Amino acid sequence: MSNFTRADGRAADQLRSISFQPDIAPHATGSVLVSFGDTRVICGATIEAKVPGWMRAQNVSGGWITAEYSMLPYSTHDRKARDISRGKADGRSIEIQRLIGRSLRAIVDLEKLGPNTLWIDCDVLQADGGTRTASITGAYVAARLAVQKLLDSGRLKENPLKDSIAAVSVGIVKGTALLDLPYIEDRDAEVDANIVMTGAGQFVEVQGSGEEATFSPAQFSELLGLAQSGLKQLAAAQNAFLTQHLLAKS
Amino acid sequence: MSNFTRADGRAADQLRSISFQPDIAPHATGSVLVSFGDTRVICGATIEAKVPGWMRAQNVSGGWITAEYSMLPYSTHDRKARDISRGKADGRSIEIQRLIGRSLRAIVDLEKLGPNTLWIDCDVLQADGGTRTASITGAYVAARLAVQKLLDSGRLKENPLKDSIAAVSVGIVKGTALLDLPYIEDRDAEVDANIVMTGAGQFVEVQGSGEEATFSPAQFSELLGLAQSGLKQLAAAQNAFLTQHLLAKS
Amino acid sequence: MSNFTRADGRAADQLRSISFQPDIAPHATGSVLVSFGDTRVICGATIEAKVPGWMRAQNVSGGWITAEYSMLPYSTHDRKARDISRGKADGRSIEIQRLIGRSLRAIVDLEKLGPNTLWIDCDVLQADGGTRTASITGAYVAARLAVQKLLDSGRLKENPLKDSIAAVSVGIVKGTALLDLPYIEDRDAEVDANIVMTGAGQFVEVQGSGEEATFSPAQFSELLGLAQSGLKQLAAAQNAFLTQHLLAKS
Amino acid sequence: MSNFTRADGRAADQLRSISFQPDIAPHATGSVLVSFGDTRVICGATIEAKVPGWMRAQNVSGGWITAEYSMLPYSTHDRKARDISRGKADGRSIEIQRLIGRSLRAIVDLEKLGPNTLWIDCDVLQADGGTRTASITGAYVAARLAVQKLLDSGRLKENPLKDSIAAVSVGIVKGTALLDLPYIEDRDAEVDANIVMTGAGQFVEVQGSGEEATFSPAQFSELLGLAQSGLKQLAAAQNAFLTQHLLAKS
Amino acid sequence: MSNFTRADGRAADQLRSISFQPDIAPHATGSVLVSFGDTRVICGATIEAKVPGWMRAQNVSGGWITAEYSMLPYSTHDRKARDISRGKADGRSIEIQRLIGRSLRAIVDLEKLGPNTLWIDCDVLQADGGTRTASITGAYVAARLAVQKLLDSGRLKENPLKDSIAAVSVGIVKGTALLDLPYIEDRDAEVDANIVMTGAGQFVEVQGSGEEATFSPAQFSELLGLAQSGLKQLAAAQNAFLTQHLLAKS
Amino acid sequence: MSNFTRADGRAADQLRSISFQPDIAPHATGSVLVSFGDTRVICGATIEAKVPGWMRAQNVSGGWITAEYSMLPYSTHDRKARDISRGKADGRSIEIQRLIGRSLRAIVDLEKLGPNTLWIDCDVLQADGGTRTASITGAYVAARLAVQKLLDSGRLKENPLKDSIAAVSVGIVKGTALLDLPYIEDRDAEVDANIVMTGAGQFVEVQGSGEEATFSPAQFSELLGLAQSGLKQLAAAQNAFLTQHLLAKS
Repeated sequence: MSNFTRADGRAADQLRSISFQPDIAPHATGSVLVSFGDTRVICGATIEAKVPGWMRAQNVSGGWITAEYSMLPYSTHDRKARDISRGKADGRSIEIQRLIGRSLRAIVDLEKLGPNTLWIDCDVLQADGGTRTASITGAYVAARLAVQKLLDSGRLKENPLKDSIAAVSVGIVKGTALLDLPYIEDRDAEVDANIVMTGAGQFVEVQGSGEEATFSPAQFSELLGLAQSGLKQLAAAQNAFLTQHLLAKS
Repeated sequence: MSNFTRADGRAADQLRSISFQPDIAPHATGSVLVSFGDTRVICGATIEAKVPGWMRAQNVSGGWITAEYSMLPYSTHDRKARDISRGKADGRSIEIQRLIGRSLRAIVDLEKLGPNTLWIDCDVLQADGGTRTASITGAYVAARLAVQKLLDSGRLKENPLKDSIAAVSVGIVKGTALLDLPYIEDRDAEVDANIVMTGAGQFVEVQGSGEEATFSPAQFSELLGLAQSGLKQLAAAQNAFLTQHLLAKS
Repeated sequence: MSNFTRADGRAADQLRSISFQPDIAPHATGSVLVSFGDTRVICGATIEAKVPGWMRAQNVSGGWITAEYSMLPYSTHDRKARDISRGKADGRSIEIQRLIGRSLRAIVDLEKLGPNTLWIDCDVLQADGGTRTASITGAYVAARLAVQKLLDSGRLKENPLKDSIAAVSVGIVKGTALLDLPYIEDRDAEVDANIVMTGAGQFVEVQGSGEEATFSPAQFSELLGLAQSGLKQLAAAQNAFLTQHLLAKS
Repeated sequence: MSNFTRADGRAADQLRSISFQPDIAPHATGSVLVSFGDTRVICGATIEAKVPGWMRAQNVSGGWITAEYSMLPYSTHDRKARDISRGKADGRSIEIQRLIGRSLRAIVDLEKLGPNTLWIDCDVLQADGGTRTASITGAYVAARLAVQKLLDSGRLKENPLKDSIAAVSVGIVKGTALLDLPYIEDRDAEVDANIVMTGAGQFVEVQGSGEEATFSPAQFSELLGLAQSGLKQLAAAQNAFLTQHLLAKS
Repeated sequence: MSNFTRADGRAADQLRSISFQPDIAPHATGSVLVSFGDTRVICGATIEAKVPGWMRAQNVSGGWITAEYSMLPYSTHDRKARDISRGKADGRSIEIQRLIGRSLRAIVDLEKLGPNTLWIDCDVLQADGGTRTASITGAYVAARLAVQKLLDSGRLKENPLKDSIAAVSVGIVKGTALLDLPYIEDRDAEVDANIVMTGAGQFVEVQGSGEEATFSPAQFSELLGLAQSGLKQLAAAQNAFLTQHLLAKS
Repeated sequence: MSNFTRADGRAADQLRSISFQPDIAPHATGSVLVSFGDTRVICGATIEAKVPGWMRAQNVSGGWITAEYSMLPYSTHDRKARDISRGKADGRSIEIQRLIGRSLRAIVDLEKLGPNTLWIDCDVLQADGGTRTASITGAYVAARLAVQKLLDSGRLKENPLKDSIAAVSVGIVKGTALLDLPYIEDRDAEVDANIVMTGAGQFVEVQGSGEEATFSPAQFSELLGLAQSGLKQLAAAQNAFLTQHLLAKS
């Protein structure tokens, strides 16, 4: 790694400060305010006792997970108009919420969820790069809190979560591979990748993209390694938070 | 007043616990998380350096204030679908955001705002009755914080706020007039009123309504009196918070 | 009251000329063209033998009343674009139709309506201030005519209407409280209020609002008194029309 | 013609009773309530001092005519949901309003209209077959009244109307060719045609259609003849009404 | 007929070169790429084992035919924005797809179709005038191919097609009546008509229209004659293609 | 690689039959019908002499590339409803068209495009897996043909394309890594990846995803290798086709 200096003084392979504030939205089944530095996302997990129409129509057993992602209007320096004011959903938001949903479904045993939908809502309160990766990382925590409440109340018999998941961004800025990019770096990145990985180290999603640039297989390999190291730390942080929080409640 | 007992033990003329958490959304010009008991609303005030199309078309000088109100999906016990998923704005939300906008405009000197729009966004994080009155009360605080930042930075020359405003709900439940109703009382109320008043005690909006009932002029008069007493306390709470917070910053 | 002169020469506490032209839309169950001076609204009441989806889903017995309000494109001096051309409903219209629906429901015994929806449609043919109050006043008359037809045909067993309702606007113009404002006064009013009252003198809705001004409790009290006196006259006019018209038919 | 008996006793080649009630919507530039028997349509013609965006973009000189057609919810025996409630315009309405617009444009010298749009609004108050033909026939009358007002006020220098137009329906019911079909005949017609013709006897639109049937060239020829005779009477009725009404005003 | 010279050298009463390329969309039940000169349209006929909601609600037996028409964005010289990007369906497209559906239904025995919907999709690949008439002509061929596949597989017991249909445009350009107009002639036509006729010579739809002109009964009669002669040739071309193609398959 | 047998008999690392049919839509600037086995996509590239609003607003120089992707209703065995009929764009389509646009922009020098938008339209005529990778591969060919026409006509001075791009899908089915999956394999794949690469072997997009499964870094590495080998063949096929076709034209 080169001796590149980051605006916030971090090492190239260092995460931003990560934190979880539980029960931010007490009416959700589980909720958390996740922070990756100045990026903060409200993650709510809410159970609903029905499944989507297509599952009923096709007689599919088990449950479903649907995610919705939105940036609150005041999350950005220039106010972002609401989807409903613009009259249609934002293409980027649709892409992100599909990613969040797929990621969660990869670690959930949908049969054990029973005939329920687990709604995952991620609303960005403050945006400073990496909102989709913070969302996925927080969504898992909110889902785990929701599952615990459903197990405690007897509404679920078994934990449907097979593993944990977290996500992180990596990118190449001026030729240097960096972990967990804030907006100022993300804006200037030649390559941008988002990696979703389980606690056990299996990939769930790998997405690398060069908007106005391309990247070599070797560069991509370096980015993947950087992401894997960050994702191990995120899994540990999730685990530490959940262990302490769920113990405190029991 | 009868010896009616409220679920939360309050006196009939007693407000819920009120609090303001500033800077909940740091990218807004001003923001606050306002709580009326278990009702919590994120209020953001964001300045934008242009005015609506109809003002430009009609060559109206000065600025404008537009409000948007939304309930986050996890703010209610049963998840509330987003407007964009339902494909159209919610009639109740439209009514509320028009009320918030009118209320703020009544205490603002739009000329002093210059050619700017002040966007007021109220997103309900937790709903337990009185979300519109908490929104207006918090919106004023967010607007005051935004104005201070704009005065400090020199973007505004004079404070365009002529007074403060706050709002409170009153209602009649089983024949008893009550102040600041939580959901459980609001659901059973025969009459429901929302009053918006300035710090100086002038009315801005008076709205009383009986969905499946009617009310006598005497009852309405009692409700107005109850609201006025509550609104004085709210104005004092806003003032105390702002004095302390703005002092701490200066 | 001051010696203020109104454009149309009326006394401050005088209504405009009120009239009802029945059966304007013969395919409705009941209909009337109501006039408050130059404000004219087509009010249709149409019965439909089903209830809204949410009532069926929640197994609520009885019927429902839904109101829709619209300004015809040629009702204003500058043509008003249709909602469908603008692609979305007008916020003001939504607010008004919710008000009309709530007002009607307050005087109807929904159980006696049976498993039916009574649709109230108010389409403004000519707008000169007070379109919402003329709409409510005419909607009651259309509903009463519809109920009579349903009683006569045996489709309803009992009259579900518990009382009559009417509505009127009051406002303060250049410091003077005025009853039933035409557009030219409404445009300049510092305070604008709309009051809905039953024939028996009970309030159904009280809405007072100062767009760029505030008002004192004493002013509001004066406005309420003025409205009450106008509403008694409107109730008498409704009653006289209906008595004569229903007699003529029987 | 066979000795077929019509429900309302008319001869096969006889029009329903035709009438025009002027100034039904006084805020329009010109307006009329046209009746073809129990089919009644409010026709408003409103001038707007601008042309559509595509004319400005392509720098086309002269003016434009745009028509909108809608059935009021209470115009039919079963209430018809508004377009805005259904979320999209009705295919049939779009087809009809395009027809009305094209028909009017065929007799107007758009250059003489100046840089203005003449909006033609047709709202069906009561539907009993032939709403599109009554709309066109009334739209011409409303347009003529609007033109007169614009000539009188000096806003137009020359009359842009080159001729009159009227429209009528013809159809084949149980093998018999009939003129001006009410709903009960229209519903059972094997063939349905709508013809638009100028006062001078030139065709503007000829539309014949068999929904679940076909028709021979000879049958079509008979229908055209029937329509031509009815259209001459309609042109005479328009002319008589306008002559008397415009004289009375001058 | 005058000695008018057409841009492509055809006689006034001559069709453009007509061709049918079968199975252009193999996943449709039947499909064809139809060409009228440089106008090319993909016509797909797809069977779906259910009927529209209104048929189920009204308990109507038999099947239904629904048509959809769209111009692909690259079918015109200036790219045509998609409906979904514009946010609403195009008025002209709605008119055309209603015409295609009505035309097909006129020759189909809906009872014999069973409880199925036959979807007719016409997507214009290249537009050079006459896209609606090419669509109808191709739609019949696609429907015939679909019916054959359904008969062969035993899903249909009897052929529900009672006759063939084809459509052609005719128009008057500089006073001369012309058959099958390409864009360059259509653009300049004073009168434009589209005629739909069965193989047996019965009319299904006759639509003649003068956008900024009118036409005499004699001119219309000449146009109808021209269309009839072209439609006989089109019916023969359909028949020749289908005979050869269905033979080749059997 | 295991001795897994594919339904179509291909080796695990073998592409389907690839072909390009040029000028499928002659009104586009460039167009091609690309086939990957039974997956066939119409790709049109159309130049428009303006740039998006946000570029003008921000005064960005150069041009832009926007892609739209759609599945024609008859492209699938069960008819797929059009977006405009469903009232909103399909989430999956939005994701794909964003991918196509980003991919093309990575190899284009937007400055050399001048103040133009190059519209890329991909409409799936027949869907059998890999529609997004066929779309990107065909979109490049259509863009190259469009660029040649613009260079030949002098509308472009220099070729803005810096390299070629192609895309291919890879996936793991029953533990075996496979190249270029048809629908039947795609449906059963545990892991699905889409890779976009330039002719020079640089990555543009790497997207790997396990809907209800996860995958190891080693598996992902194997998939990447398989994709790279397939992408070299695709680049060669594009080059061979373009060389021959452009030579033939010159």
